[in-house]
Amino acid sequence: MRAIVIDNGVSLRRDYPEPASAPGESVVRVRLAGICGTDLELANGYMGYRGIPGHEFVGEVVETRDASLAGRRVVGEINASCGRCDFCADGLGRHCASRTVLGILGRDGAFADYLKLPNRNLLPVPDSVSDELAVFTEPLAAAYEIFEQIEIPKNRRVLILGDGRLGAIVAMAFKAEGYDLIVGGHHREKTDRFRDFGIAVELENNLESGYQVVIDCTGSSAGFRRALELVAPRGTLILKSTAAASESLNLAPVVINEITVLGSRCGRFALALEALASEKIDPRPLISATLPLDEGVRAFREAAKPSNFKILLRAS
Amino acid sequence: MRAIVIDNGVSLRRDYPEPASAPGESVVRVRLAGICGTDLELANGYMGYRGIPGHEFVGEVVETRDASLAGRRVVGEINASCGRCDFCADGLGRHCASRTVLGILGRDGAFADYLKLPNRNLLPVPDSVSDELAVFTEPLAAAYEIFEQIEIPKNRRVLILGDGRLGAIVAMAFKAEGYDLIVGGHHREKTDRFRDFGIAVELENNLESGYQVVIDCTGSSAGFRRALELVAPRGTLILKSTAAASESLNLAPVVINEITVLGSRCGRFALALEALASEKIDPRPLISATLPLDEGVRAFREAAKPSNFKILLRAS
Repeated sequence: MRAIVIDNGVSLRRDYPEPASAPGESVVRVRLAGICGTDLELANGYMGYRGIPGHEFVGEVVETRDASLAGRRVVGEINASCGRCDFCADGLGRHCASRTVLGILGRDGAFADYLKLPNRNLLPVPDSVSDELAVFTEPLAAAYEIFEQIEIPKNRRVLILGDGRLGAIVAMAFKAEGYDLIVGGHHREKTDRFRDFGIAVELENNLESGYQVVIDCTGSSAGFRRALELVAPRGTLILKSTAAASESLNLAPVVINEITVLGSRCGRFALALEALASEKIDPRPLISATLPLDEGVRAFREAAKPSNFKILLRAS
Repeated sequence: MRAIVIDNGVSLRRDYPEPASAPGESVVRVRLAGICGTDLELANGYMGYRGIPGHEFVGEVVETRDASLAGRRVVGEINASCGRCDFCADGLGRHCASRTVLGILGRDGAFADYLKLPNRNLLPVPDSVSDELAVFTEPLAAAYEIFEQIEIPKNRRVLILGDGRLGAIVAMAFKAEGYDLIVGGHHREKTDRFRDFGIAVELENNLESGYQVVIDCTGSSAGFRRALELVAPRGTLILKSTAAASESLNLAPVVINEITVLGSRCGRFALALEALASEKIDPRPLISATLPLDEGVRAFREAAKPSNFKILLRAS
């Protein structure tokens, strides 16, 4: 099958072996997949990943022993867990120590004709939710994860730092949930786009500190440092993006101002699918381009351009 | 008056001006004061502090317009706040933006014959609480601050990382409150001392990860990195000590494992005084030596030795 492969760089292969069927797992033909910042970091060596990247997708189940999934259009939770440990028992399989993660850790991902996931990871997509919406389920679930982790009073002014695709989807989720929010951006051409999305935005240099909730979606240590400056004493800084590199940081302000830094990663898909089906959130304006899988290598280059938000890959 | 002064190094001065009386403030004759890690960092240039350090003390009110304080033996909250801002209104004057902090920020401290604090900062010490106990009110209040910030279920096994004076006092507080805890130490001669205090201890290299609550009392970036390794996914890492220097850190594990990093600084004195008066905690075994104020410079050197816990200065 065709596959975009990370192995000392990114390349297209046409002879990649199709995923073999396995007990309790289904094979999915990928229809549409999205490139995110993590994919770009993996391509740059993050976590030493080799294999097919891609964890945002919508596809069609083509091989399964689960009758309720056969032929269904699905999205899929990306953490494939053991199902037996304490985390799995608590519904937190995404923290299972022996998990594999689609396109990130020990499991080939979605930038290919086919992928394989455990049956219990797959969720049928309602007919009313188009492929272009469903492909945002994974990043939207990651945004909704914040609401699962902490309760943020609706009267809090929320600052979302980062004007990339992650900042945009988190901002859309907070807007959909009725929060008063502002995005702090860095690139003039991007902050203008946020206004098109109906989201309040300001260049981060112009922001004054004192936000009780700051969400760092910058993916950079400089962004984290700036977030620490902007959060109010006793406030909460939600760390939503990973910076691959170790960088010089001073955590003294965390102690002095008694900040809560909350790491936040993947979320449950059901909530995100619900939000998409209810039409209270529409991330489609974030689609900068949709390229065929054959042009996956170019798609990676496009996704790395600061002027682009979401680049999609169409496989079938 | 006599004073230990930080100004390009630490020195004893005998001609330092006595604190002038000010409206709403009282002058206290210092009886006993404790040296903590922050004092050593200030001496090394942290926060660019110049003046008299020292913020752990017990003394006697010798000049006041508040009849309820006149002649009383007191301890004192170290943050002198404006009393008017939102933080002050919420009882969080220790986060007041225009605060001064005794011996740390814009206000001379306790390593002297006299100090000055707002009347509302001073708490009379019950007769049953000796000077040697009362001088621990400030660090003990900082330990009890953790319980004010978050609720930790009693069935959680708590790991306290750091075998210095801060780790010891935090461990004593958790023990007094009925927690099952272990201290992770680094220096064999210190871990042996913890056993004398009746506190479970292990060399941190021998610890295995998976603690739901880890309290970093190491005051070093290396300690924070180790704490990140030892905390369980979805766990809480309480950052209790500041590392003055910026160092290379990678916060990716905070996101991947959805860790909550909680900065924790000063606490309310009333709780700590209560704990001391009730005799459920006795930090006196931590006293390594008590030196006269005249030997304050040597006391700083003694406090910096890894083999010593708390060094006290007796002023009167």
